Amino acid sequence: MIRAFYIGRFQPYHFGHHTVITRIAEEVDELVIGVGSAQKSHEATDPFTAGERVLMLYNALEHLPIRHYVLPIEDVRYNSIWVHHVASRTPRFDVVYSNNPLVIQLFREAGFCVKESPLYIRDRYSGTEIRRRMIAGEKWEHLVPKPIVETIKDIDGITRLRNVSASDNNFSL
Amino acid sequence: MIRAFYIGRFQPYHFGHHTVITRIAEEVDELVIGVGSAQKSHEATDPFTAGERVLMLYNALEHLPIRHYVLPIEDVRYNSIWVHHVASRTPRFDVVYSNNPLVIQLFREAGFCVKESPLYIRDRYSGTEIRRRMIAGEKWEHLVPKPIVETIKDIDGITRLRNVSASDNNFSL
Amino acid sequence: MIRAFYIGRFQPYHFGHHTVITRIAEEVDELVIGVGSAQKSHEATDPFTAGERVLMLYNALEHLPIRHYVLPIEDVRYNSIWVHHVASRTPRFDVVYSNNPLVIQLFREAGFCVKESPLYIRDRYSGTEIRRRMIAGEKWEHLVPKPIVETIKDIDGITRLRNVSASDNNFSL
Amino acid sequence: MIRAFYIGRFQPYHFGHHTVITRIAEEVDELVIGVGSAQKSHEATDPFTAGERVLMLYNALEHLPIRHYVLPIEDVRYNSIWVHHVASRTPRFDVVYSNNPLVIQLFREAGFCVKESPLYIRDRYSGTEIRRRMIAGEKWEHLVPKPIVETIKDIDGITRLRNVSASDNNFSL
Amino acid sequence: MIRAFYIGRFQPYHFGHHTVITRIAEEVDELVIGVGSAQKSHEATDPFTAGERVLMLYNALEHLPIRHYVLPIEDVRYNSIWVHHVASRTPRFDVVYSNNPLVIQLFREAGFCVKESPLYIRDRYSGTEIRRRMIAGEKWEHLVPKPIVETIKDIDGITRLRNVSASDNNFSL
Amino acid sequence: MIRAFYIGRFQPYHFGHHTVITRIAEEVDELVIGVGSAQKSHEATDPFTAGERVLMLYNALEHLPIRHYVLPIEDVRYNSIWVHHVASRTPRFDVVYSNNPLVIQLFREAGFCVKESPLYIRDRYSGTEIRRRMIAGEKWEHLVPKPIVETIKDIDGITRLRNVSASDNNFSL
Repeated sequence: MIRAFYIGRFQPYHFGHHTVITRIAEEVDELVIGVGSAQKSHEATDPFTAGERVLMLYNALEHLPIRHYVLPIEDVRYNSIWVHHVASRTPRFDVVYSNNPLVIQLFREAGFCVKESPLYIRDRYSGTEIRRRMIAGEKWEHLVPKPIVETIKDIDGITRLRNVSASDNNFSL
Repeated sequence: MIRAFYIGRFQPYHFGHHTVITRIAEEVDELVIGVGSAQKSHEATDPFTAGERVLMLYNALEHLPIRHYVLPIEDVRYNSIWVHHVASRTPRFDVVYSNNPLVIQLFREAGFCVKESPLYIRDRYSGTEIRRRMIAGEKWEHLVPKPIVETIKDIDGITRLRNVSASDNNFSL
Repeated sequence: MIRAFYIGRFQPYHFGHHTVITRIAEEVDELVIGVGSAQKSHEATDPFTAGERVLMLYNALEHLPIRHYVLPIEDVRYNSIWVHHVASRTPRFDVVYSNNPLVIQLFREAGFCVKESPLYIRDRYSGTEIRRRMIAGEKWEHLVPKPIVETIKDIDGITRLRNVSASDNNFSL
Repeated sequence: MIRAFYIGRFQPYHFGHHTVITRIAEEVDELVIGVGSAQKSHEATDPFTAGERVLMLYNALEHLPIRHYVLPIEDVRYNSIWVHHVASRTPRFDVVYSNNPLVIQLFREAGFCVKESPLYIRDRYSGTEIRRRMIAGEKWEHLVPKPIVETIKDIDGITRLRNVSASDNNFSL
Repeated sequence: MIRAFYIGRFQPYHFGHHTVITRIAEEVDELVIGVGSAQKSHEATDPFTAGERVLMLYNALEHLPIRHYVLPIEDVRYNSIWVHHVASRTPRFDVVYSNNPLVIQLFREAGFCVKESPLYIRDRYSGTEIRRRMIAGEKWEHLVPKPIVETIKDIDGITRLRNVSASDNNFSL
Repeated sequence: MIRAFYIGRFQPYHFGHHTVITRIAEEVDELVIGVGSAQKSHEATDPFTAGERVLMLYNALEHLPIRHYVLPIEDVRYNSIWVHHVASRTPRFDVVYSNNPLVIQLFREAGFCVKESPLYIRDRYSGTEIRRRMIAGEKWEHLVPKPIVETIKDIDGITRLRNVSASDNNFSL
């Protein structure tokens, strides 16, 4: 039995994530998916709450054929303990999939087995680009799985993103 | 569609929790299960990590007939924001099931609908009693669903519980 | 111009506090009143929020003849910096009034001038006794200034206190 | 009885704030004024402590004809609970005045009534511009109410602002 | 080259600690000494600051024949990451000396080599007993190395301990 | 007896620091060296852990002729209490050496005696420049004392620095 770990911020969940997760699911028995920066929301780069992102993943991964855990992971104040923070919040896993050099470095220093994630076309599917389109009023719906569109509409996510982006994120005059 | 919320510490998950969750599942469409005090582990009253407890719930609830979310919830420093902390970490829910007077008071003040949990025989199924039996070397396995026994053995949980209970929990002479 | 500092938890504000503050007001030009443990509420020993306690003090001290500042002060994680934490949250003051040995020690070590508070009959006017009476359904209204009774009724404070006291303060089964 | 809420950082308090607060005071019965980012001081954009800013507001608003509360509000780590954090630190209020899109969004999502603040000429009265003038040695005193000038001189605020701005805010070589 | 780790709270440093450290020094090449609960001071069980305790250890260990590091270690909020927190604050070490079951359990789970500390007569040399004697005005000086007596006198430590113990440690009426 | 205080981040320790510390050591009896931002590591500007930096200083200062304390100092959330945080973590000192305007301002406001550090050629010896060279594969070894080269090689520090710098420091896609 091989259990893998994969982490993203999912702001929002898009076809890039979906491709990677679907591919990993073909190689392992179980997959732990960390919803990173769980404490963040209502920011220009992090508009959605952890709960909203969890819902996106449940909706998009309903038919993933292997058991998967969707678990919010809060940031910690310093990198040296981040891996152990993750480990204490998740079922024990055997391999980490990531393309992020920092994530790879931290897990390797801690003695974990790390593999490169299957690639996707990053230019096309990127949270940054999708949020830019949402604010600009351009088409973004084709870049995310269908249930994500619903979830974002239900919470009036575009209005929220525009407002939090219009602000300097500072509660003050 | 009715989505409910239920929270426990699950140190460990036992037949008391299992009965309640099974009953709630008959009344609602989806259930969000909060794994409370997620940051705690290796303490006499909280021996298991959030990740280990998540695994217990996934194993025990594999056949629960409704969609359920198992989400670690960390404690926060003050009660006045606890409900909103929970809300930001979970998909939106319509009703809270609880028998804890503080939980009920906090959710009611915040305008949530709260229902009493279905009851179980607390004297028999209690985390405190189960941990006492584990330390004393008495029989405890019949008080928890079978997969929980496996999970605890896999991590050598009895030894851990005994050691963390033998200590005054203070890293010092 | 002499500005003094006085701190209490005010759970709730009662005639003991009122007597002390009225007396200090006769000796100084301005008074900074710290509302301690500001982050706490909905606990058996700390049922009221900082905002509710601020309101109690504004209502009770409406006619205090000197300028007074009512400022919530959160607890800090360690005693060695508590005095400086207080100092950064308050207008500069010249003298501290307290009968609490720890408060006196901390301010003296930091070089502040400290005076004993004018005394009041502690057995009669004590937050602990008032909260006990509230829970037991005994008479408590004569122990607090009249506006405090209103404030507590407005927020249904007795019900809240009973519920948070009935719980073991632990969000879990 | 209508109680309103208004928040600013007041680094320093200036005629822009003063105009807005004076206008709001004509529309409501009581006003809660939050002193935002209360934990900050000795930074290029936040030179003054919460206590110093509280003093500025008390001095400038001595003759405001309605009851007003001046209450420091610390930042919290994440936006989703900020409104509830504010609510627990303040007497209950009926309406929020703000022009900040993020503040408006957060209070609206939490079900509060929000009104646009009365406007002032932002180009002229801005904390950023005033701090720039203080550092450059240009005239700034005409942009703030007279008592603010005194308060800042008493604490040698210009020297402090220059020193904290000269640094990269990093305690190190 | 073998580098060992040993941790204590040292409230205050006494002959029990001294015996253990001297013995460990005979078995290893370098010793890292953690000053635990570094953030605490001015409490009945933790009267001395980290800085004062560091000074005690430097004075008492001036002639220890091996290189030793005296490093304050703050508590962390949860046990599962404590070992990794320690590891990030200290030079890499090969072996841990401890008699505390929790410390042993945590380091063993993290894969460290742990040895039992050399024993000392705990009834005689205990921080609890020494602090009790200090408060009661009984003889305590013979239980600690001579430089410790000086250090405590220099900071008027007995007065501090008595005052912080007389208080219920709660900044309030 | 004069005890001085000096603080740096030491990312890594270089000849600039070494010159300053050696000079200060000629003027005072004891020197407390704070290792600033102790909680940081594995970041592009802060690659090394506190423990690794402590080891660098012990190795480089083995022959410093005066007693010196090497003590990690974590950042605190706000500047107003930073000085007191430092003071609680260190043996009492009489004078602070610094060229950082913020550090000077904070210690002066708190009543400490502050002296300008002896100067060194900053263009040549700068952590920023050394880290840039490490990443670029240029020569950096001549800019640090010899034992520092060993320490960094032992932990494969160059690889780590490159990886953490290649990332946007954000655990996510």
